[in-house]
Amino acid sequence: MKVAIIMGSKSDLEVMQQAAQVLADFQVEHHIQIVSAHRTPELMVQFSKEAYDKDFRVIIAGAGGAAHLPGMVASLTALPVIGVPVKSSNSIDGWDSILSILQMPNGVPVATVALNAAQNARLLAIQILATSDNALYRKLEYYKQSLRDKVIRSNEGL
Amino acid sequence: MKVAIIMGSKSDLEVMQQAAQVLADFQVEHHIQIVSAHRTPELMVQFSKEAYDKDFRVIIAGAGGAAHLPGMVASLTALPVIGVPVKSSNSIDGWDSILSILQMPNGVPVATVALNAAQNARLLAIQILATSDNALYRKLEYYKQSLRDKVIRSNEGL
Amino acid sequence: MKVAIIMGSKSDLEVMQQAAQVLADFQVEHHIQIVSAHRTPELMVQFSKEAYDKDFRVIIAGAGGAAHLPGMVASLTALPVIGVPVKSSNSIDGWDSILSILQMPNGVPVATVALNAAQNARLLAIQILATSDNALYRKLEYYKQSLRDKVIRSNEGL
Amino acid sequence: MKVAIIMGSKSDLEVMQQAAQVLADFQVEHHIQIVSAHRTPELMVQFSKEAYDKDFRVIIAGAGGAAHLPGMVASLTALPVIGVPVKSSNSIDGWDSILSILQMPNGVPVATVALNAAQNARLLAIQILATSDNALYRKLEYYKQSLRDKVIRSNEGL
Amino acid sequence: MKVAIIMGSKSDLEVMQQAAQVLADFQVEHHIQIVSAHRTPELMVQFSKEAYDKDFRVIIAGAGGAAHLPGMVASLTALPVIGVPVKSSNSIDGWDSILSILQMPNGVPVATVALNAAQNARLLAIQILATSDNALYRKLEYYKQSLRDKVIRSNEGL
Amino acid sequence: MKVAIIMGSKSDLEVMQQAAQVLADFQVEHHIQIVSAHRTPELMVQFSKEAYDKDFRVIIAGAGGAAHLPGMVASLTALPVIGVPVKSSNSIDGWDSILSILQMPNGVPVATVALNAAQNARLLAIQILATSDNALYRKLEYYKQSLRDKVIRSNEGL
Amino acid sequence: MKVAIIMGSKSDLEVMQQAAQVLADFQVEHHIQIVSAHRTPELMVQFSKEAYDKDFRVIIAGAGGAAHLPGMVASLTALPVIGVPVKSSNSIDGWDSILSILQMPNGVPVATVALNAAQNARLLAIQILATSDNALYRKLEYYKQSLRDKVIRSNEGL
Amino acid sequence: MKVAIIMGSKSDLEVMQQAAQVLADFQVEHHIQIVSAHRTPELMVQFSKEAYDKDFRVIIAGAGGAAHLPGMVASLTALPVIGVPVKSSNSIDGWDSILSILQMPNGVPVATVALNAAQNARLLAIQILATSDNALYRKLEYYKQSLRDKVIRSNEGL
Repeated sequence: MKVAIIMGSKSDLEVMQQAAQVLADFQVEHHIQIVSAHRTPELMVQFSKEAYDKDFRVIIAGAGGAAHLPGMVASLTALPVIGVPVKSSNSIDGWDSILSILQMPNGVPVATVALNAAQNARLLAIQILATSDNALYRKLEYYKQSLRDKVIRSNEGL
Repeated sequence: MKVAIIMGSKSDLEVMQQAAQVLADFQVEHHIQIVSAHRTPELMVQFSKEAYDKDFRVIIAGAGGAAHLPGMVASLTALPVIGVPVKSSNSIDGWDSILSILQMPNGVPVATVALNAAQNARLLAIQILATSDNALYRKLEYYKQSLRDKVIRSNEGL
Repeated sequence: MKVAIIMGSKSDLEVMQQAAQVLADFQVEHHIQIVSAHRTPELMVQFSKEAYDKDFRVIIAGAGGAAHLPGMVASLTALPVIGVPVKSSNSIDGWDSILSILQMPNGVPVATVALNAAQNARLLAIQILATSDNALYRKLEYYKQSLRDKVIRSNEGL
Repeated sequence: MKVAIIMGSKSDLEVMQQAAQVLADFQVEHHIQIVSAHRTPELMVQFSKEAYDKDFRVIIAGAGGAAHLPGMVASLTALPVIGVPVKSSNSIDGWDSILSILQMPNGVPVATVALNAAQNARLLAIQILATSDNALYRKLEYYKQSLRDKVIRSNEGL
Repeated sequence: MKVAIIMGSKSDLEVMQQAAQVLADFQVEHHIQIVSAHRTPELMVQFSKEAYDKDFRVIIAGAGGAAHLPGMVASLTALPVIGVPVKSSNSIDGWDSILSILQMPNGVPVATVALNAAQNARLLAIQILATSDNALYRKLEYYKQSLRDKVIRSNEGL
Repeated sequence: MKVAIIMGSKSDLEVMQQAAQVLADFQVEHHIQIVSAHRTPELMVQFSKEAYDKDFRVIIAGAGGAAHLPGMVASLTALPVIGVPVKSSNSIDGWDSILSILQMPNGVPVATVALNAAQNARLLAIQILATSDNALYRKLEYYKQSLRDKVIRSNEGL
Repeated sequence: MKVAIIMGSKSDLEVMQQAAQVLADFQVEHHIQIVSAHRTPELMVQFSKEAYDKDFRVIIAGAGGAAHLPGMVASLTALPVIGVPVKSSNSIDGWDSILSILQMPNGVPVATVALNAAQNARLLAIQILATSDNALYRKLEYYKQSLRDKVIRSNEGL
Repeated sequence: MKVAIIMGSKSDLEVMQQAAQVLADFQVEHHIQIVSAHRTPELMVQFSKEAYDKDFRVIIAGAGGAAHLPGMVASLTALPVIGVPVKSSNSIDGWDSILSILQMPNGVPVATVALNAAQNARLLAIQILATSDNALYRKLEYYKQSLRDKVIRSNEGL
């Protein structure tokens, strides 16, 4: 039950490593790798086809611009794929990444999260694994309480 | 291990019932209900808080315009929530639904699918359940092969 | 006859405290608090349901990204809610905040003001209170004259 | 304590008369008139300057395209002005109306509602009047309950 | 035969004074003034109604956000009005200014130029005056040649 | 003192002939012709270079999609060019036509009017000619009064 | 020296077969096939890798929504790939197709043409082949003259 | 068999000279020049008409804002024209450049690449020349392998 985190380019690392500790906090094992749909298409095919047998259960894929990686991986495996639109340097305000990832055709969904939302991608992966792991689900509930408490404490200084 | 399908308004039914047979094809039990974030907020709170104990493991939430239902449900449960942006009548080309569902803050992800993509939401829900159900995963692989075969056959008439 | 100013996150404070003195200038009492639709949904429900009895008559709610706070508060109280779209860091040029706040369904309006327009939200709240307070209305007329005079004086240096 | 409903063109009537009975349901008196910012600017000035003395307390202004009517009326009176962006025939998907009404400068707010949302504009006007009329406020709460009940009943046929 | 240059706010000066020498280069007299549609509506009415008799023949009006000044002046005079959309600080990438100025209804045109294009507004004003001034027209032709020569010379360093 | 009306394609005729009688009403002579920037570039060059000597004083140019005609004509003559963005069949909601016409570089303005606004283009042309023709200016003032009267009469049936 | 025309779905055929006779008119051989990036990824890999050896010299790829086909083919062959964004049924006004095809990363260009522009894709393919075929180039020049003549004749009926 | 690189303004040089060495790496001869559609239209006509006889086989044209250069050159020659949308200073996020270049009418295609993608334009030009040059094609395949190897090596440091 591992999570794979892949991204199209080394330049996506800064975004994709945000909140990197989240998976460790939940004791979920993960693997991180650069896999480019456009520059290493065959590596992408191989990675996707072997993912289930390598015990990955969720794949997080981040990419910018014409972001084909999440959708292509989703076409090559039946595992759930979470897409992270990355606002890269020549991106058109992020619209290109978002639409390239979100607007998948019938039969091949990608679970898209917000622009640059690498942290939420990790949480969603944990939520998916927690559908069959009651202890993990309880940890998520505890995490949500900590978010609530933090907001309430933030009012103290006002 | 059931899937809940909720939507903000009866007018979303036409979109949300597309491909309704998909879950039955995969023998996944589901429940469908109208729950409005804006007109039945307390029903929404109650539904979300009870969902896990009622054995739901994935919630699909469809809404149009200022589409708050998916994100609000995600704030009230730790289950994975799949958001379906619905292009409603006074929508601004669907941009309002998409951005209201997709751009969630850190801590509360929504797995967003394409505009009106109720079918892909169902498939994504099955993919999520299949992370802990090998037989279901194999059925998904078989389904993907059927998509492939259909494309290949469509070339025969060209 | 008080005004409540709430916002979804501490990061909205910089925008929401702009022109903070406006309400004091008009001698309108107000209360400021962080209430997150997504991280403190139950606090939001409680706050909204008690607002009228706590003598609030207008609620100003600021939020960014998938900005659900103004619309959800409007669903939980019959008080007028003024929504301030905040251009947050990973916002898509503010479009997400604007559309999430503006495009509310029939039955649950939010009085939306311009992007980051915390000052105009305060003025609109005063205008609303002035509908039943002739002295306050006259102060607003005087304020409008001061705006006019400032423009006319700005021509002197040209 | 009357509500004025004005619009820029006879072609806006179809949208602006939607849900026309709402104000009558709440026993709020109103007056409806065509006032064009661009074709009858002097009528607009006169109307705005006399509005308070004619006992109007809220002005609803609908307009399409380069929709200047709501903002200009707001510049000429201290009454709260609710702007309704109308999606007219040569409009660019309604973006022109929305942005022309919403993005007002500091000092002159317009309470903008959703595209074509003439019904919500009426409800917002009632909410504003109800800030000083407890009986009216209770009617609004009852109205919100009726919205809730309608959603709950809509589940019966599913 | 003078040109009036007006703008909605002192903050528009930086943009509107770009290429300020162009009118002087063509020996066209001009007058510059801040006239706010929203803060000095009556000054705007007066200015517009007197413009023809004060010998203005073209009015250049710059404004940002919900930019009503060009269209409102065009509604109050029969002189040609050139609108300059200004990308102001809280503007939504300039879209609000452009659409508020461009999308005027039938009967009241505004000659819109590009975002922040105060220089082109001046040139267009000169072109308009040159329709009845052959010498001025020849100067414009000479100016166009100088633009051409400058491009050709810019190739020398490549 | 004639007005030339040109357009890029026969398919633009339906839009460009709207309100065709306006110029005749003002007794302004005009000439209409199809001149394509992309299919008859040399005709476009010739037309533009001869326009002043043929006694044209304003050129109205309508085009859709990548609408280069108005800007290219403006580069080839010193006459004022009015651009009409036409929403053609494969246009992207008219955005392509608008931006291609509006966003001209320094030195070469195009007086852009609203999407499909062939009528306003004609009125703007008349306004330009009226800068040197007092009788024509008075007719425009009379025309504006007729617009006002029509709005006032439209209230009679309400 | 053949041209391949591929598309992601049978539903793209209506657009992609427009102007189907153009290649025949220029006596350029072509092959048409449905190849889906998302439903037949391995067919896509095989097709792309064999294309050069099968004597294809240009590949035209049409797709809608999250249109990955053109970019993925471009990643798998060194042949020039022409991308045709197709405005499919649940597309967001075509923006998704355009941005998914256009915004390719460094190293993997796609020659993008206008929305639904299957005819221009064919002409561009012929232009590419004509870079090494003088006779074909002359035919293209003759074709451009025929476009010109058609525009000129279209003026006869005005 | 040379490649011409032209651009509308000296300010486009910074973008258009990115990856300038690519053509030299592939031993493809090129010529670089500033040719403005709007300031040197006649130079543009002359350049385009002579390009084929000067042994150019592909033309790369970069421009920003209302970017007419690529399309106009394409109207004046039968050579393939690659358009590079440049995000210039007063551009509206690059949308104006993209749409002005991409949305060409039937009969006159422009091969559009991504925003600021001068490197990809060069690669596409080489791909076009390689359709008749097997050795060049093999070099492109080798180049694609080097891209792949670079991605694979970038994983070593993770």
